[in-house]
Amino acid sequence: MACLLNGAVNFCSQCGANVVVRVPHGDHLPRYICDRCGTVHYQNPKLVTGCIAEWEGRVLLCRRAIEPRLGMWTLPAGFMENNETTAQAAARETREEANAELEDLRLYALFNLPHISQVYVMFRGGLKGGQASAGAESLEVDLFCEAQIPWDELAFPVICESLRLYFEDRRRGRFEMHMGDIVRGADRKVRIQHY
Amino acid sequence: MACLLNGAVNFCSQCGANVVVRVPHGDHLPRYICDRCGTVHYQNPKLVTGCIAEWEGRVLLCRRAIEPRLGMWTLPAGFMENNETTAQAAARETREEANAELEDLRLYALFNLPHISQVYVMFRGGLKGGQASAGAESLEVDLFCEAQIPWDELAFPVICESLRLYFEDRRRGRFEMHMGDIVRGADRKVRIQHY
Repeated sequence: MACLLNGAVNFCSQCGANVVVRVPHGDHLPRYICDRCGTVHYQNPKLVTGCIAEWEGRVLLCRRAIEPRLGMWTLPAGFMENNETTAQAAARETREEANAELEDLRLYALFNLPHISQVYVMFRGGLKGGQASAGAESLEVDLFCEAQIPWDELAFPVICESLRLYFEDRRRGRFEMHMGDIVRGADRKVRIQHY
Repeated sequence: MACLLNGAVNFCSQCGANVVVRVPHGDHLPRYICDRCGTVHYQNPKLVTGCIAEWEGRVLLCRRAIEPRLGMWTLPAGFMENNETTAQAAARETREEANAELEDLRLYALFNLPHISQVYVMFRGGLKGGQASAGAESLEVDLFCEAQIPWDELAFPVICESLRLYFEDRRRGRFEMHMGDIVRGADRKVRIQHY
């Protein structure tokens, strides 16, 4: 139950009363419920969108200026906002983190990270004009060819896997849409399964 | 601003104090913020997963027993839960709404519905044994060939578009991954854009 209710809710955001944890009538999972005003406080997975931006055979990486993984390299990516599309969200993150514009965006991969209730939607596209510079959340940004990728300094397994698939597809000259699960088990080991 | 903050938050779910709406330092969008305990209450899009389940050339539809669109036909689909993958979520919804099991699930389409901050992830797969019956949220379930689809009684534009693409792909003998935006404008008209 604890892991289904990821973020603790103590009070009702509608009326301010204390909440209880119970399976609502007709439901099958425990939820935070307000018995004063009747609101059920559902919790759902979060969408993260990002992009592999390419310029003359090299890809754009950003070195993180924020926790977690401060100082590690990542693809431009972040939590999707309300009232935008996944492609708009990926473009916004690239603008915010790398002062860069994308072109010819294509859906590239969907990764499930059920242990942290996240779904990553990754795009690939062109880096317009090859122009980029560090945004507020980046220490620096740079373009890397495959041989230069700092594989041991990548921030998250999902970033590593996105880049691995991308270079594999590029070598064989055919980009496919990918889907996979990236799960960190109780033993802290990361397991990746593709479909 | 009102449309960025979709669900009204009156009280802090952590400490119970009143919240204010403000752009946090270093952010660029207004958020619900608790000035007593410092919690920022982010709001993010929700993921809906569903499936086109096929059996001997026909697809499974469910007639809705719940609002909205009570009495209309839909594909098995619903809000993704924490700690599951998109494929597991689609299988669970199909089990709940149609007492049916899926096999050979494949990612089929991603639809952005930014006006209601939802992203649909649709799969296609086989309906195991051709077996299905109405679950608690369905009045009835049935299998339909293309000519029998009740196009004027489908619950949502995203369901109509998923089925339209599916039968189009099947006619030409090649299934592709699709992505599109489905937007209902201020004039209430639905616009669909594919990538």
